[in-house]
Amino acid sequence: MKAHGTGTEADADEKETGRLEAFSDGVFAIAITLLVLDLKVPKPAELASAAGADGGGGGLLAALLAQWPTFLAYLTSFFTILVMWVNHHTLFSLIRRTDHVFLYLNGLLLLFVTFVPFPTALVAAHMGSPRSGTAAAAIYGGTYLGLAVAFNLLWRYASRGRRLLGRRASAAAVSAIDRSYRVGIPAYLVVLALAFVSVPACVGASLALAIFFSVTGAGKRSQVRASTDSV
Amino acid sequence: MKAHGTGTEADADEKETGRLEAFSDGVFAIAITLLVLDLKVPKPAELASAAGADGGGGGLLAALLAQWPTFLAYLTSFFTILVMWVNHHTLFSLIRRTDHVFLYLNGLLLLFVTFVPFPTALVAAHMGSPRSGTAAAAIYGGTYLGLAVAFNLLWRYASRGRRLLGRRASAAAVSAIDRSYRVGIPAYLVVLALAFVSVPACVGASLALAIFFSVTGAGKRSQVRASTDSV
Amino acid sequence: MKAHGTGTEADADEKETGRLEAFSDGVFAIAITLLVLDLKVPKPAELASAAGADGGGGGLLAALLAQWPTFLAYLTSFFTILVMWVNHHTLFSLIRRTDHVFLYLNGLLLLFVTFVPFPTALVAAHMGSPRSGTAAAAIYGGTYLGLAVAFNLLWRYASRGRRLLGRRASAAAVSAIDRSYRVGIPAYLVVLALAFVSVPACVGASLALAIFFSVTGAGKRSQVRASTDSV
Amino acid sequence: MKAHGTGTEADADEKETGRLEAFSDGVFAIAITLLVLDLKVPKPAELASAAGADGGGGGLLAALLAQWPTFLAYLTSFFTILVMWVNHHTLFSLIRRTDHVFLYLNGLLLLFVTFVPFPTALVAAHMGSPRSGTAAAAIYGGTYLGLAVAFNLLWRYASRGRRLLGRRASAAAVSAIDRSYRVGIPAYLVVLALAFVSVPACVGASLALAIFFSVTGAGKRSQVRASTDSV
Repeated sequence: MKAHGTGTEADADEKETGRLEAFSDGVFAIAITLLVLDLKVPKPAELASAAGADGGGGGLLAALLAQWPTFLAYLTSFFTILVMWVNHHTLFSLIRRTDHVFLYLNGLLLLFVTFVPFPTALVAAHMGSPRSGTAAAAIYGGTYLGLAVAFNLLWRYASRGRRLLGRRASAAAVSAIDRSYRVGIPAYLVVLALAFVSVPACVGASLALAIFFSVTGAGKRSQVRASTDSV
Repeated sequence: MKAHGTGTEADADEKETGRLEAFSDGVFAIAITLLVLDLKVPKPAELASAAGADGGGGGLLAALLAQWPTFLAYLTSFFTILVMWVNHHTLFSLIRRTDHVFLYLNGLLLLFVTFVPFPTALVAAHMGSPRSGTAAAAIYGGTYLGLAVAFNLLWRYASRGRRLLGRRASAAAVSAIDRSYRVGIPAYLVVLALAFVSVPACVGASLALAIFFSVTGAGKRSQVRASTDSV
Repeated sequence: MKAHGTGTEADADEKETGRLEAFSDGVFAIAITLLVLDLKVPKPAELASAAGADGGGGGLLAALLAQWPTFLAYLTSFFTILVMWVNHHTLFSLIRRTDHVFLYLNGLLLLFVTFVPFPTALVAAHMGSPRSGTAAAAIYGGTYLGLAVAFNLLWRYASRGRRLLGRRASAAAVSAIDRSYRVGIPAYLVVLALAFVSVPACVGASLALAIFFSVTGAGKRSQVRASTDSV
Repeated sequence: MKAHGTGTEADADEKETGRLEAFSDGVFAIAITLLVLDLKVPKPAELASAAGADGGGGGLLAALLAQWPTFLAYLTSFFTILVMWVNHHTLFSLIRRTDHVFLYLNGLLLLFVTFVPFPTALVAAHMGSPRSGTAAAAIYGGTYLGLAVAFNLLWRYASRGRRLLGRRASAAAVSAIDRSYRVGIPAYLVVLALAFVSVPACVGASLALAIFFSVTGAGKRSQVRASTDSV
């Protein structure tokens, strides 16, 4: 306790950071759940008229398969929001204080998080059409670029001069996160540029980056834990 | 405290596990509440035109009864998500640490939890039609099989070599959960197979299993508490 | 700490009760917020065609006033869910443990809480029509009766032989809640009966009861606090 | 601990305040996320028929730009709810107890918070039409006036005679909040009056006030922290 100020101050800090995390968790949880509302249950009557001769089960599966862009959007939004939640969670194992600017930077990040389902649904719906697909992919890539920028702002603000970090956040853990964040913005600029070359390449690259960040996050995270444990 | 590492490390563990539980609770709470949005209020004007001679009250009750599959889906989704929340709650009374892989396994479980309302609505809507009913029931059974797999992965990962368990989780409690989880996957394979025999049998078996797990959970849980209290 | 068992056991109890409260808070928060989705923004084009000569501002206000049952449903659902949340909050200042049955009784209560917006919207939409109004009011009254039953089951299960109460819950506080809960079921039976006499009387009586419980709750609550403070 | 009563009482206070904050955070988180549901993904088929000769990408961007009032409503609602959350957060760094009346005053505030997306969408949709724009702006301005009143009631109730404040809330911090809240109601009366002069002036003034409160909040907040740290 003594390690980071008076017990009193440290308690107030922890309470505040806790409330910021709780609010953020709520936003992440809602954003990750809402997309299921886009999945539509095909009505039996619609199938009867559409299916013709073979009818029944084939008709239902066909109607569901026709919704594949919505299912794909559901899965990729869920996965990318989950990766971002884990990422946020990792940052907050080092961050032990908040201030006014930080609350708004976190708000900017949450704005992009709640927005993710929209460009994902957009690109899923327009993947097949040659021209509107490019526009949709550009919006999609732009959103991820915005997320990378928001994560960088949040982290740089908190870590500049160790402004909001706990005493136990080791220099090694901090620079491990610095390194991986430095990759984010250029990588998502490439994703955005790919939108104008090939829609599947843009979407694929963005998913590949999410997987990359989730896998490298594991390493980053064990360094973070090592650093907090060694004190 | 000393029992599971330095106070410092144990505090960080508890904070992290707490945040994972809070995020999961948010997702469970939203998933359990969203289905009420599917219930539609019949408009007075619709009743007037549909009801004919007897009109009024009978017309409203008839219009609500015509929505029975939606009400049934609401009730069964609510109940099964509640059973899963209790189950998740029981696991986390033994789990005291998290790691990177565990966060994603928990995410996989939450993906299936948020998905539950969709196959439930699907099977409720198509229960009556001979062919599409089978397809809907197969998707419903498959979702529950997926849930059983996700719960098994989560538990096996956490309990293998007591990786993420607290010191106070007794061997008896751990093997009580092991035993009941071993039943899950084969039982839900039977539920899935029943979809191709009889839709009501498939749905009925799945509800019976939920009741079974909620009842046996009581025993499991008292063993868990006994084990944590005896230390 | 010593007052209610070993520190170890009391900590585990508090963690579990805390998680139940967090999950319940999530469900209350979502249920209280969802009804805003029913408020529809009238489109400018709709007003232009409907408003005729006077057009503009009058057209918008008229279109909003035509939605008054939805606004009324929003306000009364919000208020009654808030009263129930305060009530739940008061109970949990005395309850310090959970068990398996209790988790499901709390789930039954939450089922009714998430359902509240539906009968409220139903009665608001059908208040004006003579016959369907009675049916809607009966469903509305029945829901509140169900809520009273669920609150009674929850409290009686927890307080029977002080099963789940903390040591510091005084006998006076417990019997204050007992007394006020004893009123609930008969009172809501009257509300249900009023549905068959007069729809406005049924709705008015239910709102009057909510106000009564929120006002008497204040007294109950100060007794609860007095009892926990005097130890 | 001793500073504000017996440890026992202080713990119960903290638990209760914590639950009120958690419930409020849930409501804020849902209200801030729900508006994304209003953003509609234009269907490829709609674009094909609407776009004519130039088709494709231009058609999608045009369809999205045609939704600009919805995007604007999303951004401004998000920002204003975020400012209110930060504001609520600041108050609760001074408030350490709750009572029955306070729970309902907080509920009144949350009612207005959940309502914000509706008048925002209303004014965004009707900004362009001369007469309905005025009515929409008046409803919008009235909502913000209601929010200012609710925040004032909450704060005055809690701070009157330091009723619900912690010991560590300094007189300087309390009067800093007093001063800034005194501005709120007259300022939003001006916003409401502007609705009858110019719709963009009304909306602009309301956004300017949100920015003003978020910037001055920073100063207020550092005083609050200074006061809690100096004890």
